[in-house]
Amino acid sequence: MTQAKRARSKGELTRQKVLERAFAWAGASGLPSLTIGELAADLGLSKSGLFAHFGSKEKLQLAVLEYAAGQFEQQVFRPALSHPRGLPRLVALFEDWLDWIDGHERRGCVFLSAAIDFDDREGPVRDAIADWFGKADAMITLAMTLAQREGQLGCDADPAQLAFEFHGILLKYHLASRLSRRPDGRVRARAALRSLFSHHVTSPGVLSHVFPCS
Amino acid sequence: MTQAKRARSKGELTRQKVLERAFAWAGASGLPSLTIGELAADLGLSKSGLFAHFGSKEKLQLAVLEYAAGQFEQQVFRPALSHPRGLPRLVALFEDWLDWIDGHERRGCVFLSAAIDFDDREGPVRDAIADWFGKADAMITLAMTLAQREGQLGCDADPAQLAFEFHGILLKYHLASRLSRRPDGRVRARAALRSLFSHHVTSPGVLSHVFPCS
Repeated sequence: MTQAKRARSKGELTRQKVLERAFAWAGASGLPSLTIGELAADLGLSKSGLFAHFGSKEKLQLAVLEYAAGQFEQQVFRPALSHPRGLPRLVALFEDWLDWIDGHERRGCVFLSAAIDFDDREGPVRDAIADWFGKADAMITLAMTLAQREGQLGCDADPAQLAFEFHGILLKYHLASRLSRRPDGRVRARAALRSLFSHHVTSPGVLSHVFPCS
Repeated sequence: MTQAKRARSKGELTRQKVLERAFAWAGASGLPSLTIGELAADLGLSKSGLFAHFGSKEKLQLAVLEYAAGQFEQQVFRPALSHPRGLPRLVALFEDWLDWIDGHERRGCVFLSAAIDFDDREGPVRDAIADWFGKADAMITLAMTLAQREGQLGCDADPAQLAFEFHGILLKYHLASRLSRRPDGRVRARAALRSLFSHHVTSPGVLSHVFPCS
């Protein structure tokens, strides 16, 4: 390994370590409170060194969102793709999303807190968050469309409308689980999803196949 | 008016003015960032004077939540009570809640941002937010129960489950409207509510009565 490559590799490792910590921080205390100075102190690194990695608070925030998007992709979107198209994939997506909400060592979902913190601001961070939620909506809508093409959801179902309602259940689960600590959160969320599908499936058999225990 | 009464009345006026400003601040920048020092500077008041009114940052945050609860009561819960029991009242509650989400001069909903900011913390502020959302759930559940007693929703409908789904739609509307600025937010939210009711009404006539134009 050349010296230049070694230096780059060390730099990448530091960047990765910083992003992991910044991601945890943003989940717990919110993206707006994430500053290069406090993060450097927290990691025992020099502020100037950290500044050299990211350039500005805004660029650090954007890097954290990109890191979070990668984590979500890995933990939620990609695993769902290994399930058969249609309702089984949608149920897998839903279940992994519930786990994401409860995950992060109970540190909170960086996307949702960023969405609420930045929704009335302007700028690239806000745009990045809105963009991520737009992509998430598009992913769910596509999965609904595939369920329709597979003949599981009826022709009168509107995939974008179902995606809107699907995400609403997840948002309510977030509050029920994390804020209200309701023990019935998962049961309520699953019942809501089953109910959403039940009004659009082409036959009851489709439903009992994906919700075998309820 | 005695001197003591005048002083109390002036104190109440100042408190009211401070709370109005603090409420707007908390909606825009979040409850955690609300400090007595910055608020005093913003209002051109002395920090010690403001401290005398509230005593601590935490007590100020609790006072803001109480003020916000009063505003919500006045703008959302109470107007709904003037509508007939059952679905008309639920639809009125829903519509006023949509307006609340879009209101506050686009400053954001203090409850939702506080819920996300405080959900992983402990203490009286977190408890107050969880308590408010618990009461909101109970209000919606009661309205659903009344719709059932009025014979509009079937006996198999579970009011608490319907309340969970009702609030999920509102949360998704919050993101769709404020973060994503989707022009179809209201149409989607109303379609979701209509769909939620349509699966539980005892007759289609009930539905066309409360959604006359769709």
